[in-house]
Amino acid sequence: MEFSLETALPILRSTPAVLRAWLSDLPESWTRANEGEDTWSPFDIVGHLIHGERTDWMDRTELILAHGDSRPFVPFDRFAMLQESRGKSLNQLLNTFAELRAANLRRLEALQLKPNDFRRPGRHPELGQVNLGQLLATWVVHDLNHLSQIARVMGHQYAEAVGPWAEYLPMLSRARR
Amino acid sequence: MEFSLETALPILRSTPAVLRAWLSDLPESWTRANEGEDTWSPFDIVGHLIHGERTDWMDRTELILAHGDSRPFVPFDRFAMLQESRGKSLNQLLNTFAELRAANLRRLEALQLKPNDFRRPGRHPELGQVNLGQLLATWVVHDLNHLSQIARVMGHQYAEAVGPWAEYLPMLSRARR
Repeated sequence: MEFSLETALPILRSTPAVLRAWLSDLPESWTRANEGEDTWSPFDIVGHLIHGERTDWMDRTELILAHGDSRPFVPFDRFAMLQESRGKSLNQLLNTFAELRAANLRRLEALQLKPNDFRRPGRHPELGQVNLGQLLATWVVHDLNHLSQIARVMGHQYAEAVGPWAEYLPMLSRARR
Repeated sequence: MEFSLETALPILRSTPAVLRAWLSDLPESWTRANEGEDTWSPFDIVGHLIHGERTDWMDRTELILAHGDSRPFVPFDRFAMLQESRGKSLNQLLNTFAELRAANLRRLEALQLKPNDFRRPGRHPELGQVNLGQLLATWVVHDLNHLSQIARVMGHQYAEAVGPWAEYLPMLSRARR
């Protein structure tokens, strides 16, 4: 599928509600557990999504529109949330994420982008030449990637509890390899 | 984490709301797309979850409680939903799944299972000896596994649209290997 705002926006709009429906009533034994040292819990992942709303997607969109590929993006800090989330509750993070996402989608819609704009070039500090459509498609897949990760991290907590069924659960058998 | 109803029930309760928040407003270009021949779309996956509510989890629970491992489970038909879902809308399937899940959790709670019950043995037609706790833990991980799959299937639709970013998205780069 090619990138379009018509397909991207419904996913970007749904993610905060998905996270809330999924995580807001779960005990911390699910939401604070990770897959081992230096891996992320669902709590950490929501913090990471917040940091993306604050510093990544819309800032890079506006940089492309203002400067094209003449200025590289500011590198994204993948670990900033470990500090920023400290002392907060998961429900605080879920609310913050929902507010920031809604505000960013208003910023995006206010730009009234046309299909031609999605070819406008930008420069990624490591990947090199990219374009606006690729950036916005990545915003969508980044959400989906972390939803998939949350499922995997929680499933991992029951990896032993399922006994012989692990063999039938690709999420567990793949993670074991 | 060991299996317990206290950890399992909140996940089992949340899945219908997660699916609704995620899928009910998405265009069919997301919900009806799969990963290629003989793979499942989000629509197919919701149908598969419905079939599990109808024929798998609680029927096997009751079989274990009534007959232990003296009778093997009825094999689960992983493709039944391809017929059963035909002609239905995704929102009809989401409603059906939510109703069946709620009814099954009422059946489960009415059993007033105690930790000792989770060791009661059952017999899987292929995996052999299992127990009730493993069956119920598998119900949880099966939900999570299919939520992860839905994310992956939808992400796959934008695999080309993200351009060079595919390298940073484990969901896409893993699927390519």
